[in-house]
Amino acid sequence: MSQNYCVIMAGGVGSRFWPFSRTNRPKQFLDFFGTGRSLLQLTYDRFRKIIPAENILVVSNVIYKDTILEQLPELNENQVLLEPHRRNTAPCIAYAMNRIKAITDKANIIVAPSDHLILKENEFIDVLKEGLEFVENNDSLLTIGIKPSRPETGYGYIQINDGEGNLRKVKTFTEKPNAELAKVFFETGEFYWNSGIFLWSLSTIDNAFERLLPDVASKFSAGKNLFNTQDEQNFINEIYPTCINISIDYGVMEKADNVYVLCADIGWTDLGTWGSLYEMSNKDENQNVALKCKTVFYESTDNIVALPQDKLAVIEGLSGYLIAESDNVLLICKKDEEARIRQFVNDVTVMFDGEFQ
Amino acid sequence: MSQNYCVIMAGGVGSRFWPFSRTNRPKQFLDFFGTGRSLLQLTYDRFRKIIPAENILVVSNVIYKDTILEQLPELNENQVLLEPHRRNTAPCIAYAMNRIKAITDKANIIVAPSDHLILKENEFIDVLKEGLEFVENNDSLLTIGIKPSRPETGYGYIQINDGEGNLRKVKTFTEKPNAELAKVFFETGEFYWNSGIFLWSLSTIDNAFERLLPDVASKFSAGKNLFNTQDEQNFINEIYPTCINISIDYGVMEKADNVYVLCADIGWTDLGTWGSLYEMSNKDENQNVALKCKTVFYESTDNIVALPQDKLAVIEGLSGYLIAESDNVLLICKKDEEARIRQFVNDVTVMFDGEFQ
Repeated sequence: MSQNYCVIMAGGVGSRFWPFSRTNRPKQFLDFFGTGRSLLQLTYDRFRKIIPAENILVVSNVIYKDTILEQLPELNENQVLLEPHRRNTAPCIAYAMNRIKAITDKANIIVAPSDHLILKENEFIDVLKEGLEFVENNDSLLTIGIKPSRPETGYGYIQINDGEGNLRKVKTFTEKPNAELAKVFFETGEFYWNSGIFLWSLSTIDNAFERLLPDVASKFSAGKNLFNTQDEQNFINEIYPTCINISIDYGVMEKADNVYVLCADIGWTDLGTWGSLYEMSNKDENQNVALKCKTVFYESTDNIVALPQDKLAVIEGLSGYLIAESDNVLLICKKDEEARIRQFVNDVTVMFDGEFQ
Repeated sequence: MSQNYCVIMAGGVGSRFWPFSRTNRPKQFLDFFGTGRSLLQLTYDRFRKIIPAENILVVSNVIYKDTILEQLPELNENQVLLEPHRRNTAPCIAYAMNRIKAITDKANIIVAPSDHLILKENEFIDVLKEGLEFVENNDSLLTIGIKPSRPETGYGYIQINDGEGNLRKVKTFTEKPNAELAKVFFETGEFYWNSGIFLWSLSTIDNAFERLLPDVASKFSAGKNLFNTQDEQNFINEIYPTCINISIDYGVMEKADNVYVLCADIGWTDLGTWGSLYEMSNKDENQNVALKCKTVFYESTDNIVALPQDKLAVIEGLSGYLIAESDNVLLICKKDEEARIRQFVNDVTVMFDGEFQ
């Protein structure tokens, strides 16, 4: 029987959550909800329930090594795979896959982001079990699809084939739609959100890389004797800069013909934006959301306020705003202008020479 | 020749500047502009230039004793006069006057609030010198009047008699006017702002109290042998609760017939409200004011932002707001709703059991 592995991708920069997230402390390392556990820790805790600790790998940028080992002391140092550069998810997954290949020749692998929120944990575990069994017995790439609860424009969608049950063949992957298209997707019932959580067997993903990203595959397989040895990091440092910057969705999933989706209701949010955080949070009677901090609102509606835990915000006459403070930065901006946060961070970085980055 | 004395009144609670000011740290003790000196210290520094250190008295509530001695280490402990209760300015001035009477029988006294801002310091010193000379030679109560620069509704006004020069007899005192009346006052050129800075000789103010507030005068004079002795504080603690709560303006100045005003241009602001602070502060090209902190504005106008010195505020799409943070409280409210801050403080005090008072 195959061993089960989990690869947690934790290399994101998360600038969309500035000033909460910073270059040296992206959102996966933050305790967003004041629960005492960061998003990475919550992710690890979930997978730890069905995957042996020694079979969990975390892939991230080399600059986050200490943070990861600090947050996940159960991990051995060699379970943290360090990328010297950001190269999107395809090279990241190729790296982890080659490491696992050096350990075993038969494995089922779950690949997941480290910064998503999953509210229905028991359902999620059941879904993972079902998925692991499926990929063990089928030469298929499996993704977890989420039944949309709204015509969200911030997610990619998956169109499923006709059929019965929760396990369907994928008809098409689509990029983030505009509002009109999202409404159509939402109403047909044929479209699911792409969660970015994937399951496959080692041999299936190996074949997919060889077929669809042969250049990446051959770069990594050139060092096959070096993985899981002292020379692995040097080899990775050498080949990584030469790898194409491409996502697994675009490089593999959208092009492969053996892709299935497991449609699930697991209380999933990718927490990609303040807006999605607002959507999934508890609201008061005026649709205000307070994260961690205490708040008193007067004539204010539809705001999301995120201050440090011990703080109080008193807000009068404000509607539709994001108010976020962390360390030495306070950001106030319209909720529907949050896409400009990247611009703000860039401006501020230039103006203050990186001080508030 | 008389000695010159100065009495600095520093007993205010300053709840209008919450959350900057707190019950245990009213605005006179705050370094509003990041200059390194609090408003009280700036006030002391100004008077110190023409008054000997040992002739400067500070009157305040007993709870601020340590703060005052910490901020003004040049003072002896007995130069800080401690009120056991808040009783407005008339009892406060009667107390200081009786202390001075126990030291000397001939004095010219300047009485001033501790929380005003004066930008033209040299002109102010000249005005004080002129005023001290006037009250030494005239049995008159003198107040400093400020030429209005706008039809402000937040200040009291003084109407002056016809005549020549800057020293005029007062025709009437008026309370804070409504907007319409303020406009008339401003346009006639006959009205000056009441700065709340007074000058008089010891004998003149003594006579005024005996004539206009005989009850207060007799309460204090009953203990005339106790002032400037070890028994002074006990005596004050005893009579203070029985004193009428009344301002010197209402109790004496508005009723006396020997009141003069010295009209001056000294860059004065009473800093009574966020609005007045906004008015007197430097503005950027979009009429935004930043106090101490760094700010980056996008599509934002007419805001005043006061955060701690090391902080950055990034503000998008906001106009006409006050954004103030201090310690564990962030306040965002419309500038023209700032009169409600007292209500906010009261609400918060009840809701959080005094935590953010």
